[in-house]
Amino acid sequence: MSKVAIFGYGTIGSGVVEVLNKKREYIEKQVGEEISVKYVLDLRDFPGDPIEKILVHDVQVILDDPEVDIVVEVMGGVHPAYEYVKSALLAGKSAVTSNKALVAACGPELLKIARERKLNFQFEASVGGGIPIIRPLEDALTAGDASGIYGILNGTTNYMLTKMFDDEMSYEDALAQAQALGYAERDPSADVEGFDACRKISILASVTSGKFVDYQEIPTRGIVGITQEDMSIADLLGYGIKLIGSFSRENGKNYAEVTPMLVPFDHALYPVKDVFNGILVDGDVNGAIMFYGSGAGKLPTAGAVVADIIDIARNAGRTIQAGYSEEKLELADLSARERAFYVRVAGGSEDQAQAFASSFGADSYTEIESGTYAFITAPMTRAAADKLCADAEGNINIIPVIG
Amino acid sequence: MSKVAIFGYGTIGSGVVEVLNKKREYIEKQVGEEISVKYVLDLRDFPGDPIEKILVHDVQVILDDPEVDIVVEVMGGVHPAYEYVKSALLAGKSAVTSNKALVAACGPELLKIARERKLNFQFEASVGGGIPIIRPLEDALTAGDASGIYGILNGTTNYMLTKMFDDEMSYEDALAQAQALGYAERDPSADVEGFDACRKISILASVTSGKFVDYQEIPTRGIVGITQEDMSIADLLGYGIKLIGSFSRENGKNYAEVTPMLVPFDHALYPVKDVFNGILVDGDVNGAIMFYGSGAGKLPTAGAVVADIIDIARNAGRTIQAGYSEEKLELADLSARERAFYVRVAGGSEDQAQAFASSFGADSYTEIESGTYAFITAPMTRAAADKLCADAEGNINIIPVIG
Repeated sequence: MSKVAIFGYGTIGSGVVEVLNKKREYIEKQVGEEISVKYVLDLRDFPGDPIEKILVHDVQVILDDPEVDIVVEVMGGVHPAYEYVKSALLAGKSAVTSNKALVAACGPELLKIARERKLNFQFEASVGGGIPIIRPLEDALTAGDASGIYGILNGTTNYMLTKMFDDEMSYEDALAQAQALGYAERDPSADVEGFDACRKISILASVTSGKFVDYQEIPTRGIVGITQEDMSIADLLGYGIKLIGSFSRENGKNYAEVTPMLVPFDHALYPVKDVFNGILVDGDVNGAIMFYGSGAGKLPTAGAVVADIIDIARNAGRTIQAGYSEEKLELADLSARERAFYVRVAGGSEDQAQAFASSFGADSYTEIESGTYAFITAPMTRAAADKLCADAEGNINIIPVIG
Repeated sequence: MSKVAIFGYGTIGSGVVEVLNKKREYIEKQVGEEISVKYVLDLRDFPGDPIEKILVHDVQVILDDPEVDIVVEVMGGVHPAYEYVKSALLAGKSAVTSNKALVAACGPELLKIARERKLNFQFEASVGGGIPIIRPLEDALTAGDASGIYGILNGTTNYMLTKMFDDEMSYEDALAQAQALGYAERDPSADVEGFDACRKISILASVTSGKFVDYQEIPTRGIVGITQEDMSIADLLGYGIKLIGSFSRENGKNYAEVTPMLVPFDHALYPVKDVFNGILVDGDVNGAIMFYGSGAGKLPTAGAVVADIIDIARNAGRTIQAGYSEEKLELADLSARERAFYVRVAGGSEDQAQAFASSFGADSYTEIESGTYAFITAPMTRAAADKLCADAEGNINIIPVIG
């Protein structure tokens, strides 16, 4: 019988307890033995809650109990999650986490400790919520050796962009609505600045490449500065705008990035709307495969955590994940990479529009009001595009086109 | 070192050899040891082909060689694939297949033999080509205990339906074009009658339920009889038409079916076009998750086969798949299940259109030419719908609406 301790009784923690209870019979059949929760760790008290009897405030009780073989970290944040998980691994317990910040910052070290002790450190729930993506990247796609990953990894910003695109809402109104619905925090910067997506793509890039992709080295631009006007023009040009975390390999170089991107209507990621996540994996063998589903939410995330618990219980005594090493993957300079860009000029001179567009290799431009026009450039480097913009009139927004 | 024998050197078989060669280094890193092909079995000769030296015509050579630990069956058809795979398992070799006919017909027995001998019988490539679906259903989704699966599982018919919908092509022209492109056989019945999709959904249903879902018991209707007119009306009503293999559980009853279905524009399966496959998995925990990609093709299918080979090589000496039992899952009668239907009447009396639609609980109907109209019914049983149609004028086509 596997005995589990859960660090943190917030939304996800209580979801994990709920799923383990609800699916008790099914899980037992799958694993061949019972999985029970022996402890819940939280600083708070929960009088009247069924977990009251197994609630502890001191992590040491759990670390010292040899009966506990799996700990589940769902507290969030790097500290003290890191210290707790590391201590648990060093005490011979496998660990599961839904905490992208922990994995992005400390994944290589924790994976190494787990490997050395024939334990497991699993984090399926840290990216894409209930969507299975870490495991497919590790297992089924192994033969494909993915050459590119493009993901809508943040539900909050995808919801906002959907409202701006479909309902012609302003950025401010979309944010207010996301906050009213509980999708966005009062301080929305982790979402709208792209920090959340950045940690997630760093995890996917690490799993895919087998080396550590440091999130601090990933150029990250959020959706701040995307206007409803950009949405309207993109629509006219045949594109949506999505916040994309990407990792790709070209000519032996590795690129990682978080940025809004123009996504054509016929692209697999285009229909991914509202709070949904979608992750497109490009491989030279398997072709393009997309995974789509709820990227967050109590039960989907808890379900992914429980799937990891089941996986570990089924495989006691062996490390199942290939994981990735502590060696850092070198990321190439994005500004030297050729691709097409969307260029929007607001308050420019109408007379110069065609000449300006032509200088980017664009045959034509689309105007939505006097002085506000946009075009898609020929493939060029960002450096070249910036140079062309340097002396131009008006307020210019440059967004790469996916592809 | 794992030594592999490949049964059949057709498209998939040569693809497996290609992927194993192309990805040699990567695979070795993943598995921790080399995987090499020791034999290729085929009745034909391949003079000048690199595999000429390892080609054998007699399966017994492979069965008798204790060095071979994994056989790969990519011949297609039930016989002699069944005899070869069974003999290999009995000789202590694990087996991988891409052969849906074999899995649908003999899966339970072959899985049992594998389990009893701590071997593996894996078939990721038998459904969805390069899309990982068997393994996610087994692993990551375990906590979700999927309550419904809706799949576009046949690329040929999806291609035809896409041409009929997007390009207003007739059924006959769409079939001719699919044949010209090599998507459809000269005798297209396995695709257009739904037999291929039926075997695939039976496999997914078996894996999900843990019991054998016999494909012979799954009510199966293909795309024959779907007209370009149906496509136009569906479009007007806000739907596409897709061939859907489904397995779902409601109130303790299990339903499986292959049938064309109306799919609303905002449904996750709607954007799955051309030869692509899409599989939507509904779970009470994970919510709706969709898997999308190339459902066929030499390299994607070979990639899925190689992923199974890698999985087995990594897990020598233990059965990794939960699989399903020989016990048959009882399927409930679909005609007693309430749902909405699309009803199209051709050559009916225009005067009676509104009254006829109203008898199905439909508020309105859509007419595209005199005497040809259609409507979406209120939820009702198929038996009730058929009864209402019994005495009606004109040629009537009834198609269920997904949901």
